[in-house]
Amino acid sequence: MSEQHIVILLAHGSSDPKWCETFEKLAAPTIAAVPDSIVAYMELAEPSMASIVANAVKQGCNQFTVMPLFLAVGRHLRKDVPEMISAMESEHGVKINLAPPVGENPQLGIAIRAVVEETLKSSRAGRS
Amino acid sequence: MSEQHIVILLAHGSSDPKWCETFEKLAAPTIAAVPDSIVAYMELAEPSMASIVANAVKQGCNQFTVMPLFLAVGRHLRKDVPEMISAMESEHGVKINLAPPVGENPQLGIAIRAVVEETLKSSRAGRS
Repeated sequence: MSEQHIVILLAHGSSDPKWCETFEKLAAPTIAAVPDSIVAYMELAEPSMASIVANAVKQGCNQFTVMPLFLAVGRHLRKDVPEMISAMESEHGVKINLAPPVGENPQLGIAIRAVVEETLKSSRAGRS
Repeated sequence: MSEQHIVILLAHGSSDPKWCETFEKLAAPTIAAVPDSIVAYMELAEPSMASIVANAVKQGCNQFTVMPLFLAVGRHLRKDVPEMISAMESEHGVKINLAPPVGENPQLGIAIRAVVEETLKSSRAGRS
């Protein structure tokens, strides 16, 4: 059995390609730094979480961590995603850890402060 | 006329108080650092963006920046929020700048990488 540990960066998904592009850009630094990390979507876009897990299981992987690229826990993370994960664990006989959404980590709040300060600075520069 | 510039940190809103608490925590570093910044909700929670703007206008403010605490542009930021902003601008005779969502700034992707690395490190520590 492979020791490979797949890290799924889970975004909501949308039929709008621009929406998915934003998540691909958000995930790019992680994908460049963390081995076996990949973006997947909960719904409305590909690759789906289910297809990523099924393909990895075929290649012998049995450990997964799902990192939700969500700011907070709503219905999807309270109910839909845990149900999808339970179903995949039963179907494939694997362990899938669901991490808290990235927005619950204080580092996001620090980054938001930097973004707000940068935005205000550039809008003031634009007015002067 | 006041020169005060109100910075509205706009979250989606939810009837779940825990959801709103997450956004209050996310906003806390910004609120501590940026004068006249405040959290408001698009729907389902208080304070609403409309009530923040109406109260500030009564106090003589006429400049606002809305910073969406969203990771990407979906229907809300493409359609609903611009419509709400147009209506408030007409009603109050003020200028409201709508900034891009925080998730479009590369600093969020860097923070997400740090969160993922921290999460994986602590889960490995938990297993050893």
